[in-house]
Amino acid sequence: MQKRMYTTQMDAAKKGIITPEMTKVADDEGVSVDWLRSQMALGKVIIPANVNHKRLNPVGVGQGLKTKVNVNLGVSKDEHDYTLELEKAKLAISHGIDGIMDLSNYGKTAEFREALIQTSSAMIGTVPIYDAMGFYDKDLTDITANEFLAVLEKHGAQGVDFVTIHAGVNLQTIKTFEATKRLTNIVSRGGSMLYAWMKLTGNENPFYEYFDQVLDICEAYDITLSLGDAMRPGSVHDATDAMQIHELMVLGQLTKKAWARNVQVMIEGPGHMAINEIEANVILQKKLCHDAPFYVLGPLVTDIAPGYDHITGAIGGAIAASKGADFLCYVTPAEHLRLPNLEDVFEGIMAFKIAAHAADIAKLPHRSRQWDNDMSKARKDLNWERMFELSIDPEKAKKYRSESQPEEEHSCTMCGKMCAMRTVNQVLEQHQGGLGHE
Amino acid sequence: MQKRMYTTQMDAAKKGIITPEMTKVADDEGVSVDWLRSQMALGKVIIPANVNHKRLNPVGVGQGLKTKVNVNLGVSKDEHDYTLELEKAKLAISHGIDGIMDLSNYGKTAEFREALIQTSSAMIGTVPIYDAMGFYDKDLTDITANEFLAVLEKHGAQGVDFVTIHAGVNLQTIKTFEATKRLTNIVSRGGSMLYAWMKLTGNENPFYEYFDQVLDICEAYDITLSLGDAMRPGSVHDATDAMQIHELMVLGQLTKKAWARNVQVMIEGPGHMAINEIEANVILQKKLCHDAPFYVLGPLVTDIAPGYDHITGAIGGAIAASKGADFLCYVTPAEHLRLPNLEDVFEGIMAFKIAAHAADIAKLPHRSRQWDNDMSKARKDLNWERMFELSIDPEKAKKYRSESQPEEEHSCTMCGKMCAMRTVNQVLEQHQGGLGHE
Repeated sequence: MQKRMYTTQMDAAKKGIITPEMTKVADDEGVSVDWLRSQMALGKVIIPANVNHKRLNPVGVGQGLKTKVNVNLGVSKDEHDYTLELEKAKLAISHGIDGIMDLSNYGKTAEFREALIQTSSAMIGTVPIYDAMGFYDKDLTDITANEFLAVLEKHGAQGVDFVTIHAGVNLQTIKTFEATKRLTNIVSRGGSMLYAWMKLTGNENPFYEYFDQVLDICEAYDITLSLGDAMRPGSVHDATDAMQIHELMVLGQLTKKAWARNVQVMIEGPGHMAINEIEANVILQKKLCHDAPFYVLGPLVTDIAPGYDHITGAIGGAIAASKGADFLCYVTPAEHLRLPNLEDVFEGIMAFKIAAHAADIAKLPHRSRQWDNDMSKARKDLNWERMFELSIDPEKAKKYRSESQPEEEHSCTMCGKMCAMRTVNQVLEQHQGGLGHE
Repeated sequence: MQKRMYTTQMDAAKKGIITPEMTKVADDEGVSVDWLRSQMALGKVIIPANVNHKRLNPVGVGQGLKTKVNVNLGVSKDEHDYTLELEKAKLAISHGIDGIMDLSNYGKTAEFREALIQTSSAMIGTVPIYDAMGFYDKDLTDITANEFLAVLEKHGAQGVDFVTIHAGVNLQTIKTFEATKRLTNIVSRGGSMLYAWMKLTGNENPFYEYFDQVLDICEAYDITLSLGDAMRPGSVHDATDAMQIHELMVLGQLTKKAWARNVQVMIEGPGHMAINEIEANVILQKKLCHDAPFYVLGPLVTDIAPGYDHITGAIGGAIAASKGADFLCYVTPAEHLRLPNLEDVFEGIMAFKIAAHAADIAKLPHRSRQWDNDMSKARKDLNWERMFELSIDPEKAKKYRSESQPEEEHSCTMCGKMCAMRTVNQVLEQHQGGLGHE
C-alpha cells in the first residue's frame, strides 16, 4: 500500500487532500466533498478512522451532518460474558449504529477489543483508563502516568477509532469542584478514578500533564480524541454548574492544542439535565470548544425514572441534537440498575435512533423528511405492507398488528370502519374526483 | 344539599366565590387559592368538574399548574371487551392519571360510561360524536343536528367532565382544507366524520351552527369544552399548515363565546410535528386562543416509529409541556397499529408521566424538583431501598436490579467496585472529612 501523504484526516483536510473516507462520507450524507473537507479542516466535522481499523465503514460527525448514535457495551467484573458483548455489537451493527464504545474493565480486554475491531464496521471507541486497572493488575494509585499512556498506545495500535480522555479535570479545576456544592459529586467513572488518583498521589492528571504525548499517540494512529466530561452532572440539580462549565473551558483549550497537531476532537457532554437547560448547554459547548462536534450521553431529563432511562435519555437527546449536538450516546432501560442485556441494548438502540432521526427532521429537513413522508403516504393509502417496510422496527409493527385483526382489513382495531383516513379517502373519491395531493 | 350560588367553576371564579374544588386544587398544587380563582376567571386555568360526577377528585389544568396526563380507552367494534377497558381505567387511576377519555363507539356505551364515571376519581372526557352512531343505530348522514346535541346532553347528565367538540371545522374552514395540499388529509376521527357529514348533507357543522345550544348544555352540567382539532396534522409534513392554523383561529373565537357563558374551555392540539415547530405551536395556541389551556396529543416527533409512539410522543409532549402546554394525552406503543392492551396502556402511562414531570422540572422548578433531588441524594448514598421507593415504577427498578447482583452490594453490575459514587464518597471521607453537601 502506498504511503499516505497525510497523518490524520484533519491533516489531509488542511492540506486540501480528499481522502477515501471523505468521499464515502460525503456520498452517504449527500453533501459536497469539498464542503466536507473544509469543515474538517476547521474541526467542525470529524471522521474517526484509526489507520489500523481495516473493516471500518467511516462516518462523519459534526455540523451539517446527520446525528449519529453510539452504543456502549463491555464487561464488568460482575458480568463478564464476552460472547454476549459481541452479540450486542452485532445487534448494534445490524441496526445501523454508527459507533460502539467498549467499556470493558475486567479480564481479557485486549483479546475482546481485537475481536470487536475485526468484527465491526462501526467506529470503535474506548476509555483507556477503564482498561488500565485490568491491564496492569495493580491498584489505581500504583499506576504511573507512563503506564496510562502505554494503554492508550496499545488501544491505538489495535485500531480504536476514538478514545475518551478525561483531561479537563486537573489540579486547578478540582478546586472548583470542591467549592461547588453538588448533590451527586462526580458520576463519570473515569473522572472519579482520576480524581481519586490525583487526591491520593498528589500528582497532576496524567492525561492533562502529558497531553502532548497523548497527541503524539493520537496523531500516529489517527485516533480521534473524545474529550471526556469527568464533571458531567449526575443529577438535574448539578447540571450547568460552575464545575461543569469550568471543565468545558479547559476542554476548549485542549481542543485548540489538539487541532494544532491535526488530531481530531469531539467533546463529551451531560448527563442529567432539565429540558430548559439543554439548548444553553449546546450553545456553550459550541462556543467554548470552537464548534468541535458535541457527543452527549442522553441527557436524561429527570432522575426519577430508573427502568425508563432510554425514554428520559431519548427526550434529552432529541432536544440536544435538534439544537446542534452531533452524536448521541444511547442509554438503556438498565441504566442506574445493572449491566444491560441484549433486550435492553435493543430498546436503547430503538429509542436513540428515534431521537436522532426526530432531531434530524428539525436540523436537516431537506435530507431527513423523505422517510416520514413516505410513511405518511403509505398511511393515507392504508398500505400496510409498505408501512411495515418503512417502520423503524418492522417486526414489532407486524407483531402488534397481527395480535388484533380488524373486520375491515384496511383499517386497524383502534377505529375500524371509523378510520379517519378511510372516511376521508371515500368522501374525496366520491365528491371531488380526489383533491390534488403530493 | 344547598343550591350553589353559581353555575360553573368559571362563573364562581368571576363572582369571586371560592369553590370546594378550587380549595382542593390550590392545596394539591401548593398555590394560593385567590391566585387560582383569578386565573380561572380569566380562563387560563380550568377545573373540569361535572356537577354529576360525585366521586371526582378535581384537578386544575392551565398556566402555573403542573402538567396533567390523560389516558384514552374505550371499545371499538373490533375489540369490545368492556371489562378490559374498566381494568385500563383502574390501572390509570392507580398510577395517578388525571383524566380518562372514553372513546367507546360500539355497543352499550351508556352503561359502560355510567360504570366508568362511578368508578373514577379522575376526570372523565368523551367525544359525543363517536357515541352518536352507536346511540342512534343509524348511518352517519341520517343523524340530525338535534340528535348530536341530544347525545351531548346525555353525556352531561351522566357526569362527563369534559367533551371534545369539533366545532372549528365548518363550511368556511373546509375550503382552506381543500386548498391545502396535505399528505394525510384529516386524521381526527371526529373531524373526518363531521367533514363527511358536511359534504354528504351539505349542512353546516352542527356543533358550530348550534354552538349556543352546546353552551347551554355545558353550562347546565359544568361540562368543560375541549375544543377539538379536527384538522390536526397526521404527519410531520402537514404540521403547522394553513388548515391547522385556520381552525385554531376559529377555536379562539369560540373560546370567547364560551367564556361569555362561563363555560370552561381547553384547546386540543397536534398530533404529528417536527421538534422545531413545537414551541411556535404553543405560542400560537396561547395567542390565538387567549391563554386557554392547551391539551396536546403527543405530539409525535416522527412518523416512522409505529410500535414506539409512546416514545415519539413523550419526546414531543415533554417539549410541548415545557413550553407551556398544560395537559398531555398519552400515546401507547399500539398507536397506528391496533387498540392498546393493558401492557400498552401501562407503557403509555409511564412514558407520559415521565414527559409531564420532565416538563414540570423546567416549567415549575420550585415545585417539581424535590423528587429528583431526593432520588439523587439516595443515589449518592447508594441507598437502594430509597431509590426504589422514589422510582416512578418501583417494581421495574427492583426487578432489573434483582436480575444481576453485584459482588459489592452497594454498587451495581454496570461498574461494580469502579462505581464513581462509591469511589468519590471514599476519597471525600478519607481526605476531607466530607465536603458540604445539600
